[in-house]
Amino acid sequence: MRASEDDLIARYFAPLAGAGGLGLRDDAALLPERPGHDLVVTVDALVAGVHFLPDDPPDAIAEKALGVNLSDLAAKGAEPAGFLLALALPDAWEEPWLAAFSAGLGQAAAAGGCPLLGGDTVRAAGPLQVSVTAFGHVPQGTMVRRTTARAGDRLCVSGTIGDAALGLALRRSPPPAWAGGMSRDLRGFLLERYLRPRPRLGLAPVLRAHASAAMDISDGLAGDLAKMMRASGLTASIAQEAVPLSRAAKVGLAADASLADLIATGGDDYEILCAVPPERLPALLAAAEAAGIPLTEIGTAEAGEGPPRFRDARGERSYARGSYSHF
Amino acid sequence: MRASEDDLIARYFAPLAGAGGLGLRDDAALLPERPGHDLVVTVDALVAGVHFLPDDPPDAIAEKALGVNLSDLAAKGAEPAGFLLALALPDAWEEPWLAAFSAGLGQAAAAGGCPLLGGDTVRAAGPLQVSVTAFGHVPQGTMVRRTTARAGDRLCVSGTIGDAALGLALRRSPPPAWAGGMSRDLRGFLLERYLRPRPRLGLAPVLRAHASAAMDISDGLAGDLAKMMRASGLTASIAQEAVPLSRAAKVGLAADASLADLIATGGDDYEILCAVPPERLPALLAAAEAAGIPLTEIGTAEAGEGPPRFRDARGERSYARGSYSHF
Repeated sequence: MRASEDDLIARYFAPLAGAGGLGLRDDAALLPERPGHDLVVTVDALVAGVHFLPDDPPDAIAEKALGVNLSDLAAKGAEPAGFLLALALPDAWEEPWLAAFSAGLGQAAAAGGCPLLGGDTVRAAGPLQVSVTAFGHVPQGTMVRRTTARAGDRLCVSGTIGDAALGLALRRSPPPAWAGGMSRDLRGFLLERYLRPRPRLGLAPVLRAHASAAMDISDGLAGDLAKMMRASGLTASIAQEAVPLSRAAKVGLAADASLADLIATGGDDYEILCAVPPERLPALLAAAEAAGIPLTEIGTAEAGEGPPRFRDARGERSYARGSYSHF
Repeated sequence: MRASEDDLIARYFAPLAGAGGLGLRDDAALLPERPGHDLVVTVDALVAGVHFLPDDPPDAIAEKALGVNLSDLAAKGAEPAGFLLALALPDAWEEPWLAAFSAGLGQAAAAGGCPLLGGDTVRAAGPLQVSVTAFGHVPQGTMVRRTTARAGDRLCVSGTIGDAALGLALRRSPPPAWAGGMSRDLRGFLLERYLRPRPRLGLAPVLRAHASAAMDISDGLAGDLAKMMRASGLTASIAQEAVPLSRAAKVGLAADASLADLIATGGDDYEILCAVPPERLPALLAAAEAAGIPLTEIGTAEAGEGPPRFRDARGERSYARGSYSHF
């Protein structure tokens, strides 16, 4: 006989609960006020077969479900305060899967300083779904918006772009031709980038101090940049060759030049895109470096409409669709 | 061609957004601090075929998804502050369905004083899922817990018990025999009680002022009472005949005495169960009456273990399983 929902919560989730979670034995959780701060809240739902592969390791699914929300908090300049989990288990769920999922969730929560506060576990005749609501704090009035970039702002991205989309492509059978000459280490790097987002929490105070606007890149650089510019009433010009690529992505691109599109539009980067006034750019880059997070200038926000233009030696292009859509 | 996720959000959800929702055009929402208050947070996920029927009216599904969370807030003594929506649409979703859903959601949000702050919409190859995270405020330190009932406390419930479970039974085909002699009005009442929970928001300040513990009854009176008593290290004695029943439930029970079990254990009441020190009982009842919400004493919390005992003229019984489980 299977354990009841209450048993499962007591066994696998109560040990992860922070103080406000009240041992997960109440209807609701408590988030005491943090004087002088605003609360930033975000929710992201991940569905098996859409946002992750059903056979992804359960700990990686947990890490991603929390990580994509921590990435949103980081982009808003917020420090994590806790999260709620709504888990819809498919009919065929197994307890060892849940044990591994909760272990991964606990590790990700500890690493992110973001305790579990509560949740809801249901059974659904469909794919596994993991919906996380995350809470973070910013000093009053300092949340970094998406809509407030200004013409002339420099645009920067953290880390490297396109790795997760290439990692997902490597999961296909047969693997793509461009992967043929790639070392096992580089393939492993790309696969990990797909499986385990690295939320850029260390950038939060840097963005609050210097950025005029920011968002996290979850649906592809081209599309998310277009979204931020549109929301700010602007367009942008991007130096294609300035877009930071990992060594693995460069090897792939050398083998197949057409990967440039996938790199620019593929989802799951979970890096930060931000806009900064030109005079603040040196301070922003220095602060990011001090935080140990690579940040690269890739272009400029400009007055005007239409999708951002990606320029290289051969000319310029824009991505009409631009964004990976799970929808 | 179908609208994009962004189009759908702009068309159907942005008009519902409260100030903190930033027009639903950012990665996250903002909940400014309310000085001297704690934030109460809760999440409930509803799945088609489990928590509601796929052919329930879309506005009723929306109302229930928000309502079950507002019910949790009310039980904790909290005033609604806003909510996030994570919506997983099945492959076969249609735009008129979404239009009716968002209209119902807007009405429920306005009625509950609980604006939409943000959300996530995904497509999933499975049943419709609606996950709502709701936020509420309580004056600092006054959240009403589930775990703090004391031996000797009187136990009270709001409204009437069992109506929703009877309403759900009426949806079966063929309808149950006990419904044969029931008037159309009474059947309609029970069906509505299943479709549209009435969150007891007016009880929130009453509970804060007088109750020693409270929870909302979502999985059946017997089971939820057992849960509250177990969480408080107690058991309880209930006067079966004191459990408040609607006229419709009484008519059903007269036709089929075995409905008593369904009434005590069926889910979806969304009434409030609370414990109150005996000396505070008159003040609690008077305050509930002033708030226009029926509240009825049904028994007493007692030292000891084991499931609560329901007593009537023929003896006493307890519900070993007790709780409707969606799991």
